[in-house]
Amino acid sequence: MAEATANIGVIGLAAMGSNLARNLAHHGNTVALFNRHYSRTEKLMEEHGTEGAFVPARTLEEFAASLKRPRTAIIMVKAGGPTDAVIEQLEEVFEPGDIIVDGGNSFFKDTIRREKEVRAKGFHFVGCGVSGGEEGALNGPSLMPGGTAESWKTLGPILESIAAKVNGEPCVTHIGTDGAGHFVKMVHNGIEYADMQVIGEAYDILRRGLGMTAEEIAGVFDEWDKGDLDSYLIEITAEVLHHRDAATGKPFVDVVVDHAGMKGTGTWTVQTGLEFGSPVASIGEAVFARALSSHGELREAAQRENLAGPDRTIDLGGEDRAAFVEDVRRALFASKVVAYAQGLNEIQDGAKEYGWDIDLSEVARIWRGGCIIRAQFLLDRITEAFKGDNPPASLLFDPYFERIIGESQDAWRRVIVKAVEAGIPTPVFSSSLAYYDGLRSKRLPTALTQSQRDLFGAHTYGRVDKPGVFHTLWAEPGKPEEQQG
Amino acid sequence: MAEATANIGVIGLAAMGSNLARNLAHHGNTVALFNRHYSRTEKLMEEHGTEGAFVPARTLEEFAASLKRPRTAIIMVKAGGPTDAVIEQLEEVFEPGDIIVDGGNSFFKDTIRREKEVRAKGFHFVGCGVSGGEEGALNGPSLMPGGTAESWKTLGPILESIAAKVNGEPCVTHIGTDGAGHFVKMVHNGIEYADMQVIGEAYDILRRGLGMTAEEIAGVFDEWDKGDLDSYLIEITAEVLHHRDAATGKPFVDVVVDHAGMKGTGTWTVQTGLEFGSPVASIGEAVFARALSSHGELREAAQRENLAGPDRTIDLGGEDRAAFVEDVRRALFASKVVAYAQGLNEIQDGAKEYGWDIDLSEVARIWRGGCIIRAQFLLDRITEAFKGDNPPASLLFDPYFERIIGESQDAWRRVIVKAVEAGIPTPVFSSSLAYYDGLRSKRLPTALTQSQRDLFGAHTYGRVDKPGVFHTLWAEPGKPEEQQG
Repeated sequence: MAEATANIGVIGLAAMGSNLARNLAHHGNTVALFNRHYSRTEKLMEEHGTEGAFVPARTLEEFAASLKRPRTAIIMVKAGGPTDAVIEQLEEVFEPGDIIVDGGNSFFKDTIRREKEVRAKGFHFVGCGVSGGEEGALNGPSLMPGGTAESWKTLGPILESIAAKVNGEPCVTHIGTDGAGHFVKMVHNGIEYADMQVIGEAYDILRRGLGMTAEEIAGVFDEWDKGDLDSYLIEITAEVLHHRDAATGKPFVDVVVDHAGMKGTGTWTVQTGLEFGSPVASIGEAVFARALSSHGELREAAQRENLAGPDRTIDLGGEDRAAFVEDVRRALFASKVVAYAQGLNEIQDGAKEYGWDIDLSEVARIWRGGCIIRAQFLLDRITEAFKGDNPPASLLFDPYFERIIGESQDAWRRVIVKAVEAGIPTPVFSSSLAYYDGLRSKRLPTALTQSQRDLFGAHTYGRVDKPGVFHTLWAEPGKPEEQQG
Repeated sequence: MAEATANIGVIGLAAMGSNLARNLAHHGNTVALFNRHYSRTEKLMEEHGTEGAFVPARTLEEFAASLKRPRTAIIMVKAGGPTDAVIEQLEEVFEPGDIIVDGGNSFFKDTIRREKEVRAKGFHFVGCGVSGGEEGALNGPSLMPGGTAESWKTLGPILESIAAKVNGEPCVTHIGTDGAGHFVKMVHNGIEYADMQVIGEAYDILRRGLGMTAEEIAGVFDEWDKGDLDSYLIEITAEVLHHRDAATGKPFVDVVVDHAGMKGTGTWTVQTGLEFGSPVASIGEAVFARALSSHGELREAAQRENLAGPDRTIDLGGEDRAAFVEDVRRALFASKVVAYAQGLNEIQDGAKEYGWDIDLSEVARIWRGGCIIRAQFLLDRITEAFKGDNPPASLLFDPYFERIIGESQDAWRRVIVKAVEAGIPTPVFSSSLAYYDGLRSKRLPTALTQSQRDLFGAHTYGRVDKPGVFHTLWAEPGKPEEQQG
């Protein structure tokens, strides 16, 4: 048996797993390696074995024997069945007190179930969200671990060593117990969907609406990346738009099929929001926009039908183009902040539902680097907004964001108006504004909805002038009009 | 033991159950009755025993003995555990070949599970959606049964006897196997949410936007109910808006708390749409609008913040008010048709997913009467649209709807523009238009989304000019730009 020299192990050495293993080795960890097919382990050793201290294992027994106690292993295999299978195998070679980490894209409810099962057998189980893709896994991801405080003592320093750093602070924190980490990672991805969609809407307005070239718009995004929109997604938008297709010389974005794929986390965010009654409409619109884009046959049929509607550039009516581009920037920023506000409220709702103690300020802090939605300026502000004992009920009530959206809302409206008139779809711009205006509204027409529900289904209603539950006997006008329920 | 005289039984005699039992008796059926507490059965017999042929039973054994074979019983108890419990008890007193009908608001996946379990024991199981509320149950509901063709032979004539009639045709059809009935009922309710929300948005624009009184708007809805918006929900909107609160003399709608409740079916429709990748964004916005309305603390905090935004009536700029009211009618109609189109496509997606053979024309036909979204003119048109062997890929491609939306889309845009400028939220109007414009778009900005996904996550993309799966080596500009996957 090998000597126990490794302080961490990685199981599953596909792209994410090997990059994470290399990242661990780069930061002074001794990393045990195991993959179902040893050839992949050999490949990693051949290509990167000199980058640090690796301990390749042919069997899980060997893998376990090479780990110091408490043994700590990060599983980087496919979510679902494969993850369950590896956990089961690890339970056979590990000992009580050892720590099993799932670094895959698991649904948080699976993580809650697994944590319970694994804990019952005496092990620690940590569901850890890993964001930043392959590049992040290698050079510094944002990490969202959920598990016991005890496991965090061992695992924390290791994760801190490999996480992205912003101002020297690692982008990792102990999110909460059991499924909290994967839950927060899920909402991160939901926000990412909205963030990408608002960028798409802004691009569409500039491209179709103003008739700008991809290259011109790339320049706009370069500029935007210097202001309060400064973020990884804006940066890569510029990169994509600058890029020309080698084969045709056309703008790259023009040769790409416009069907956006998805892998489930955005869908889960909206489904879970619906479960909580959390209004995450902007995230919902972003997911549905991708869904619609991928319905190729439906869209082709629509083209054949030639549905009526405007098909022209935006009429600026004498307004300066640069001023309108600035309006679009403000609309993008405001819509994005609303999506953040919705996602953060969903995290609060989840924390309440599952008894997690989640610090939103910490969540924002660790999203500043490493992950796809990283945006230092914005997330510094959100970190500040939720600091202290009296966090706002909504990000939109934080003085900074309230002021900037207040200053931007006229521009936001102008942009939606122009897009609606020009026939350019802006589902998330519009949904975010509807959320903002809904939140602002002293009275909503849902009073009518509730009246209708009482009429056709005896669902009862509250009164604005006194407490209690009431029902009107709609079909019997002679009878006393209300009954207190 | 009692003689077997009843051709149908009802279990669970709360409001829905007793009304359904009475409806059955009114139409010549002999109805066995059972309720967990006999007092409720007695009450029904005392109050309505003379309305037809009832056979009250004190025990389930007595209930079973009073039924002719194949015994057929409709369960009208709470969805979930209570339904499972009654099914289990029925299995003990029924015999193979008997028919167990669940007339509750069950989630279709539960119905699929139950049908499998019950069928394995030799019984037939029918999950039957019942729409129309208490009033419909008594005087003619719309019925959506799912189950075997064999059970339909016995059950069909009974359900036809009690269903609402439109032009003499009963609002019931054999939807499909196992969960198909409850699935279609679920989508019906999702459409209902959107239908109610677009009415709310129209009302809000007239009330807040134009400063009309509730009574004036009631008159508008009275008028609208005579045109192509003719429907139960428009009719009761007028009724609610005409209604004055007895205690205060104020318009009733003004004394009702504007928190709209919900019971789950709308939520399920959107969650299930997300599962299929079915873009049901308009229904989603309607559910989220209710969710936001019920977040009392958040909304109160927003009032304290006094978020910036317009708070004024709509500036018609010389336009005739009546003309704008007509624009609102068109916006309502178009938005509603989009919600129908989305819901009907979700039914098609569900049919594909679960192997159901669902005839959308038949679905529309049985929604013409009895149910909450009943609307004879609209649903006659939808029935026609989906008749025959070549139904359109979307309701929006049917010549009638394509024409009317084409004629309405300018008005639709004008209304959204005015609402956006006045700060009145129109989440479903806007979402439906975004769906329409998205469907119309030859190219969507999701090409940019997919490019970004390839850049940060190597998610690959398709090319517009050749088949295959591609990935750009973004970080290695020297290397060949694309790899065929």
